Amino acid sequence: MSRVVRLISAFDREVPSMSLSGLAHRANLPLSTTHRLVEELLGHGLIERLPTGRLRLGLRMWELASRGSHALDLRETAVPFMQDVRAVVRQHTTLAVLDHGSVLYVERLSEPSSPLGSANVAQRMPVHASSSGLVLLAYADAGFREQVLGSPLQQLTPETLVDPLVIRRHLTEIRERGYVALHGAGVSEWTGIAVPVFGPGNQVVAALNIIAARNSVRTPAVLPSLLTAAHGISRALKDAPTLR
Amino acid sequence: MSRVVRLISAFDREVPSMSLSGLAHRANLPLSTTHRLVEELLGHGLIERLPTGRLRLGLRMWELASRGSHALDLRETAVPFMQDVRAVVRQHTTLAVLDHGSVLYVERLSEPSSPLGSANVAQRMPVHASSSGLVLLAYADAGFREQVLGSPLQQLTPETLVDPLVIRRHLTEIRERGYVALHGAGVSEWTGIAVPVFGPGNQVVAALNIIAARNSVRTPAVLPSLLTAAHGISRALKDAPTLR
Repeated sequence: MSRVVRLISAFDREVPSMSLSGLAHRANLPLSTTHRLVEELLGHGLIERLPTGRLRLGLRMWELASRGSHALDLRETAVPFMQDVRAVVRQHTTLAVLDHGSVLYVERLSEPSSPLGSANVAQRMPVHASSSGLVLLAYADAGFREQVLGSPLQQLTPETLVDPLVIRRHLTEIRERGYVALHGAGVSEWTGIAVPVFGPGNQVVAALNIIAARNSVRTPAVLPSLLTAAHGISRALKDAPTLR
Repeated sequence: MSRVVRLISAFDREVPSMSLSGLAHRANLPLSTTHRLVEELLGHGLIERLPTGRLRLGLRMWELASRGSHALDLRETAVPFMQDVRAVVRQHTTLAVLDHGSVLYVERLSEPSSPLGSANVAQRMPVHASSSGLVLLAYADAGFREQVLGSPLQQLTPETLVDPLVIRRHLTEIRERGYVALHGAGVSEWTGIAVPVFGPGNQVVAALNIIAARNSVRTPAVLPSLLTAAHGISRALKDAPTLR
């Protein structure tokens, strides 16, 4: 692996910042090499030095990546529709995509009146343990679906679905009904309701989702808003300029 | 420069995606080397391949960088207050920081009823040609201020401030009054009104800004909302956990 890739990959959700020696250790590189490469990355703004001296990935990296990714174009298109959902439903509203085998939330609009603490954007969940994940899995290609259902499925709460047969029934139901509602599948106190967002080629490109305090919302009261917004996003995506 | 840094830096706002040979050309690397490194970056999700075959920076890069940067923690804290401003003022609302000598917008909430097209997040403006930039410059350290005022200042519109003496008068006024309103300084048809956001150590960490159609808003009608939200962000930053 190239040394710069090792350095960049050393940062993650659990350890977003570290000392130079910590970075050298995590990247498994000599301190002198790490020092030289970090100076170079600092010069480009790809790494930042905090007032405490610790190192983090830099704003310039975020800036480049924000402009660069397809899923973030999708996010730009979806945000106004997500605002509509949040205004009507008054619950946290998220947009998620499949990325490297798990669910990545690319946008989250927090509802101040929700009793649930707002999580951060750019968090991940296992595919089988979230309403967004099941929606994305329902419409994913068969190869990916079999790969997920063939792997050991982690039990995050007592209600996480871990039986492939039960999950398959849910996936069939999602394709028939066009939504899923899960209670406590990823976090015990949460209810998640998710619907698919279709792209121009009629493939599912994202899941639109609300997260509410468990059993605090009735699905029929929320679903029309989610479905309407998902249709709006699909329509806007069809009108969007083609990818550069 | 390390080869991976060259590859990453080859992507920018004007050219967010390119072919493999285009990337090799822009990074000034042999095609075979570029191919090998790109395969490695693809494997880590740091680069993505579009359906057209073109290459872009990947979602994983955005994910890592979103978690990594100080200015993005600030963004997380500020967004609810920015939503309040937009709800009251009904104009595009942005948050900007200084980064590598220019103004980087780290968040932008679009107001659907605004006649102005919404720009993208992660855009930049020259410091002297935007209301956010002048606010950040007014409270920047003297070294940076002199460096900006000592460089050639680009005339983006007939009304861009390019005379260092005039800019200095504005900066003094900003420090006295706590805000600035500029008409047509960066884009002829726009009015920008910006206020500083103070961090825990009483240093200015960002500028909060609304962008309206030129002369469509009166400053006294908008300013109380901006100032109230800026105070709210400062208060929330003081309560926030210290940087990891």
